[in-house]
Order: sequence, then C-alpha cells, then structure tokens
Amino acid sequence: MPDSLKLGLAGLGTVGAGVLRLIDAHGGEIAGRAGRRVEVVAVSARDRSKKRDAVIENYRWVDDPIALAQDPEIEVFVELMGGEEGIPKEAVEAALKAGKHVVTANKALLAHHGVALARLAEASNVALNFEAAVAGGIPIVKVMRESLQGNDFSRVYGILNGTCNYILTLMQEEGTSFDDALKDAQAKGFAEADPTFDIGGFDTAHKLALLTSLAFGVETAFDQIYVEGIERIAAADIEAADGLGYRLKLLGVAAATEHGIEQRVHPAMVPKHTPIAETFGAQNCVVVEGDFVEDVMLSGQGAGAGPTASAVMGDIIELARGHVLAPFATKVADLKPYPQAAMGTHAGSYYLRLTVHDQTGVIAGIATRMAEQDISLESIVQHRPRTDIPGVDDGEEPTGPVDVVMITHETTEGAIQKALAAIEGDGHVVAKPQMIRIESL
Amino acid sequence: MPDSLKLGLAGLGTVGAGVLRLIDAHGGEIAGRAGRRVEVVAVSARDRSKKRDAVIENYRWVDDPIALAQDPEIEVFVELMGGEEGIPKEAVEAALKAGKHVVTANKALLAHHGVALARLAEASNVALNFEAAVAGGIPIVKVMRESLQGNDFSRVYGILNGTCNYILTLMQEEGTSFDDALKDAQAKGFAEADPTFDIGGFDTAHKLALLTSLAFGVETAFDQIYVEGIERIAAADIEAADGLGYRLKLLGVAAATEHGIEQRVHPAMVPKHTPIAETFGAQNCVVVEGDFVEDVMLSGQGAGAGPTASAVMGDIIELARGHVLAPFATKVADLKPYPQAAMGTHAGSYYLRLTVHDQTGVIAGIATRMAEQDISLESIVQHRPRTDIPGVDDGEEPTGPVDVVMITHETTEGAIQKALAAIEGDGHVVAKPQMIRIESL
Repeated sequence: MPDSLKLGLAGLGTVGAGVLRLIDAHGGEIAGRAGRRVEVVAVSARDRSKKRDAVIENYRWVDDPIALAQDPEIEVFVELMGGEEGIPKEAVEAALKAGKHVVTANKALLAHHGVALARLAEASNVALNFEAAVAGGIPIVKVMRESLQGNDFSRVYGILNGTCNYILTLMQEEGTSFDDALKDAQAKGFAEADPTFDIGGFDTAHKLALLTSLAFGVETAFDQIYVEGIERIAAADIEAADGLGYRLKLLGVAAATEHGIEQRVHPAMVPKHTPIAETFGAQNCVVVEGDFVEDVMLSGQGAGAGPTASAVMGDIIELARGHVLAPFATKVADLKPYPQAAMGTHAGSYYLRLTVHDQTGVIAGIATRMAEQDISLESIVQHRPRTDIPGVDDGEEPTGPVDVVMITHETTEGAIQKALAAIEGDGHVVAKPQMIRIESL
Repeated sequence: MPDSLKLGLAGLGTVGAGVLRLIDAHGGEIAGRAGRRVEVVAVSARDRSKKRDAVIENYRWVDDPIALAQDPEIEVFVELMGGEEGIPKEAVEAALKAGKHVVTANKALLAHHGVALARLAEASNVALNFEAAVAGGIPIVKVMRESLQGNDFSRVYGILNGTCNYILTLMQEEGTSFDDALKDAQAKGFAEADPTFDIGGFDTAHKLALLTSLAFGVETAFDQIYVEGIERIAAADIEAADGLGYRLKLLGVAAATEHGIEQRVHPAMVPKHTPIAETFGAQNCVVVEGDFVEDVMLSGQGAGAGPTASAVMGDIIELARGHVLAPFATKVADLKPYPQAAMGTHAGSYYLRLTVHDQTGVIAGIATRMAEQDISLESIVQHRPRTDIPGVDDGEEPTGPVDVVMITHETTEGAIQKALAAIEGDGHVVAKPQMIRIESL
C-alpha cells in the first residue's frame, strides 16, 4: 500500500470533531476502500484547551492555520473553520498556492470567492473539494460534477436550510406562529441567537450560488441572487396552502430561462404528495433536472456533525484514490459570466393573500387590477374575518376585514408586482399583501 | 486536449440508441467537462438494418460483439445487449481480458457473475462500471462507491422496479385489481408480454444483489435472496394499508443484522408521508443508511432511454477523466463471503389479512394461535363481508366470510409463519392468509 494521505485539519468545532471521530471509527476500512490510509498529522483551532467531542492529543498542534495550510508534511488541507473572509480565506489561498489539495465545508467562502479559489487550485493542479458546503450529507456536488455530466441542466432547486424547514414544518404540524416556531428552533439549538442568516435565506443563497455554477457552467454570482426569507410567513398562509393542496418550503432555485439564468431564494408552494413536499424537519433535498436524466432527487440530513463529516470524508477518499477534478466541473477559463434573468421576467403562478374590508365592490376592484395586468385567476377563496390585526374588531362584527386568497394562472413577477401596487394604492387592503410563488415541479 | 476516448458499443436497442443520441447532442460540452472527447468508433448489434432512433451509418459496423470487445481501436467496450449468459458474458470477458474498460447496464450478468468479472477487471487494471444496471438514471452506484465510503452501512433499500411501482400506484389511485393494472402496464409498454421477471421480483433482486455488495463489501449472492413478487396483492390490501396509514411498495432490502445480512425482495408497507411512500408510477428510489451520514435517499427515473443513457455516459466520462475504481469499491480479494441471515430470523411488524367465517370464537381462536408464538397485536379490524370469493354467498347473509386485518407488534418471520400455519390448520380461514411485511423507516 502507498504512503498514507496526510491531512492538516483546521477548525475543531462540531464538524471537525466529527471528522476526527469518523477517522478513528473507520480508518481501517477506509484504507481498504481507498487503497491508501488517511491520516491526520496536524490540527489547528482557536482554543487548544477547549472541551471537544474528539481526542486531539495524538495530533501535532499548530497555532496558526495559515502555517498549517503550508505545512510541508501535509498533502491535504481540511478547512472547517467557516467564514467568508479573513483567516479561513487566507489559509485556503495559502494551501492552494503551496500545492496542497483543499477540502472545505465553507459555503460562504466559496459563494463569494469560489471562482478565484478554483483558479488557484487549477494553477497548482490540486483539488478544491466542497461536498460538505452544499447540503450536509447529501452528495449533490459529486452527482452534478460527475454522474450527471452527460446532461444539459435546465433547473436545480431544493430545500437547503434545515432551520427554515424545521420552522415551517412546526408551523404546519402544530399550527404555531412563526415567532413561536423560531423560539422552539432556538431552544433546540437548530437556530442561532441571531437567526437572520438562516431565516433571511442567505445560507440557502450561498449554497445555491455553488449549485448554479455546477449546473450551468457559469461563474458564481452570489450578489445577484434574489433573496427573500420566511419571516413574513403566517400561520394563515400555511393553512391556506394546505387547503389548496400545497406545502410551504423555503426553496433555492436556479433555472435556465429565455431571459438568462434565474437564481432565487424565497418561500414557495409545492404540490403535496411529492417527495419535496414530504421533506420535513431539518432534512434537506435537492432536485436536478437534466435533458436526458429527467429529474433526480436527493434528500437527507443537511447539517450535523455526522452527515457533514461523511461528506468531508467522501472528498478526502476521492483524493486518496488520486481523483482530482475541476472544482466547478469545467476549467475556470471555460466558466461563462453569469447571465442574470431579471426577477420581473420570472414566469409562474402566484398565491396572494389580501386582507381587505368586507365591503361591496372590493373584490371587483381587485379583479379589475389583476385583469389590467392580464392576470387570470385559477381560484379565489374568501376566508373568515380576521381577528388578529391590532385595532381591528374581534370578528363579532361581520363587516370586519377578511382574508381573500387567490391563486393565479401563470403570469410574470412584473405583472404581479404592478397589480399589487395598484391594489394597495386603491386602499382596499388593510395590511401589506402576502405574495408567495408557486414552484411548478 | 489528449486523444479522444474511443468506444465500441454493442447493443443498439432503446438504451444503445439513447447513448448515441446523447453523444450527438452533447459531445462538445462533454469534451469540455471531461477534458477529453468521447467518440464511438464502432458498433455491433444483432440486426444491422433494423429501424432505430439513432443514426449509425457514421460508425464502423462489427458483426461479432466479441470481436468488437477486443477491437484494437477501442479503449472502452460499452455492453448494452443484456442477458446473463452467452454472447454478452463472453464479450464482456473478452473485453476485460483484452484490457478494455467495460461500461454496462446489464444487471443480470453482474448479479450472477459480478465477482468473477470484477476479478478479470482487476487483473487487467481496467474498470467495470455499471451505474446504469441498478436504478436507471439514479446515480446510486457512484454515491455508494465514492461519496459515502466513509460510512459503515446498516441498510440499503428501495423501489427498484418501475413496472411494479406503476402497477401498485394504479391499484392505489384507481382501485383497480392487480390483473387490470398489469394489463394496463402491458398496454402502455411498461410490462413485457411475459411479466414474470418484473412482477415476480427477480429484476429487483438482480439490482439488490449489486447494492448489497456495494454496501457490505460482500460477494454478490443473487441465489440467496428471498424473492416474493406482487402477484398476490389484492385491492383489499391496498385499501386496508391506506386506512392504516401505509402505502404498499415492492421493496428490495439488504440489512445487516445480528444473524447475518438479510437480502429480501417482497411487497412491503411503508408509512405514508415519507418520500419513499410518495414515489409513484415508474419512478425508482433508493435509501442508504450509514452510521455517519444517517439516511440519504435518491429518486428518479429507473428506466427509459434518456435516464439510462445519462447513467452510461456518467460512467464513460469517469473513464475519460482517468478514474478507475474497483467495481464493488473494494478489491475482490477483500470482498467477504456473503453471510446469509435466514428469513425466519427477520424481525419486524406484519400486516395480516385473514378471510374467516363470521362465527363466534373464530377471532378468539386466531388470537390464541398468535399468543402461542408470543405475537402481540397493535390493531385488529374486522372488515365488511367478502362477496368476491367464488362459492361464497353475496353478502346478504351477515354470517358470510369477513376480512380480519391485523397489525402485529415486532416479532419474527418464524413466529408469524408458525402462527399462520396453525390458524390454517384450525380451519378458520376460507382462503390462504395474506401476510405483508411492514418496513420500519
């Protein structure tokens, strides 16, 4: 058997400790499968004495991750620190320049600097593997970068953030409000004290930026992603979706259209009785559509020590087997600039929930505004009077505000935005209209 | 760019024609992605003049597939003829001995001779890739052989035959009988004139044999798989399953147990509102359970020209990129003999439907027989009188036979078989008892 593949591991949080435990547990089998032993020779983290879920005494300690990245003894730098700028970035750059392979779970770093880092990797003829950066244990990067390379992709989409999916699942199953569901997620450790990054859709957008490059052979363009979080989803929307045959999910979607490539993150309705609708709790899933393969779905744990360590180890085993691929499947020089489709051109059906005064002529007025934009309605349902809006009466008065829920036929985002602006201008609505896109599967 | 990767393609049916169309459509992009052009230089099939969905005039024609397999011009032999013995086997053997890589979709060949062929591939230091042999377009082989290699697997299972899933879906959605659903599948071209191979579970078993070797590093052992088809599933079972919160699917399951490895193919009940339960029609899905990754599910088209061609091309691109792996992830010398767990030791819950005379004491008699085997019941439901058994009255007489449906708590297959034999011996049942295993997810 050849010499062992020597790793330097920077970052000993949940995932780093998971990787060490995995190597402890399965090092022998991995050597048999990979044809080469995998060995951690040195580690680095902010605090050497911190209590951890892994034994680190057997590894050489290096205070400076940038020094570790260039350490002459290592062949692979495993970056599990996280963060888009500063030391993690400098360490990864240093490793690539020093001719070390890099394995990382750092989605923020890659979403912002993926192309530049891929260029460095290419120049040194080394790998930049990031399976763990996209959907935890789900091997979507390998599937897109290798298995499905015979296809032209038309769309890739999925549930990429477990925190949001946990919150939406709780709202659906228990009827809880968004605020209560968020508190529950925080209490269970799923959501951070400052949850903006997850629930605002930015984590999903980081992952989507990588999937977009893999699917369409374009440069990553995180800054051009349309991002909308789940903060405005109400229990009333979940309930209405259920009645209409839908489930509410936070999706990341990249789709090739005649106007360019759409990259969007937003809450979306998906039809019930589909695998994506039945992806609950902290699970993630990704669907890839290709012209030959049709659609392939992968689902599984999108986070956590074990699943993420499994993904990191898959990337390491690939290197032990001597496989080095272009990070985004295609050489950097062949990546095309990202051709953005403006959000206004997005075509689809929409769910609208308007809270209006229960007065004669209101529905007619709304319908007129929709017709002006050539929007036709598939269904319209008037719900019970609202009692949860401050200053509004408690529902005993039958003329209080009511929720009107509409599903449109296919139209464009531009048309919907104009119609909603006109309806708001008419003064018929007592709260900001709710608009949720319906994703056709 | 290096020289093109030269292929010889034997078998020009649906899949072979699909592969030629894929190369015509995407040859240029594939060259960019793989770093090397992929080129078919010669083809072979039984009948040169047959009408096909692909143009074959540009390729050199070779009458004898065995000659093509050894052709000095080719580097890769693509075997898409199918069939476990005879010419396909000889051709694959000849190719491997001549030092050609082999890409094949031939599950029967591999289920029966996979280990011997892998040994030949290893001796010649070439690849034997078979992504298309397991679940059409779903890239489960690569995921298990590469992405998830850091895990110890405990179970792999799935819906691996689209014909059976189509039939069961139709029975569930339309309430049709098995015979009518089969006729519909045959009329639509999903099922063969002799459907035994699909509906009897043998196609699923071929695929399962390969998944078992990949998951557990054991030699393929097709002959030791427990195989039961869907022929005895009645509309009454689908309906009862629905009422109890289950869907009926034909599963292939390989699981590590304390008694050895179970390999079994049989109809099974799976809980509703899970992605596997929502896999409908001709779709396939596979779930892999690993100790670090937890569970990963892949679903997609399990058959058809496009999806299968996508899988074949993934295997070819891997070779263009210079990646050669052991067929079953581990060297043949390291594959362990298959340690079979006897079916009698299988532990699980069971669905039983007994058609009995509606007489005092019958239920008590059945319950006694179950108690003798230490089987406890989770639920018991007595259904309406049966009117569909020849020689039985039409239901106007309230004492006619009735269906009693029971769900057991966890027990063993051996206990269930003994209890059912005793119940049959008592003469309480008017038809052979129906027993369907419940798969815990």
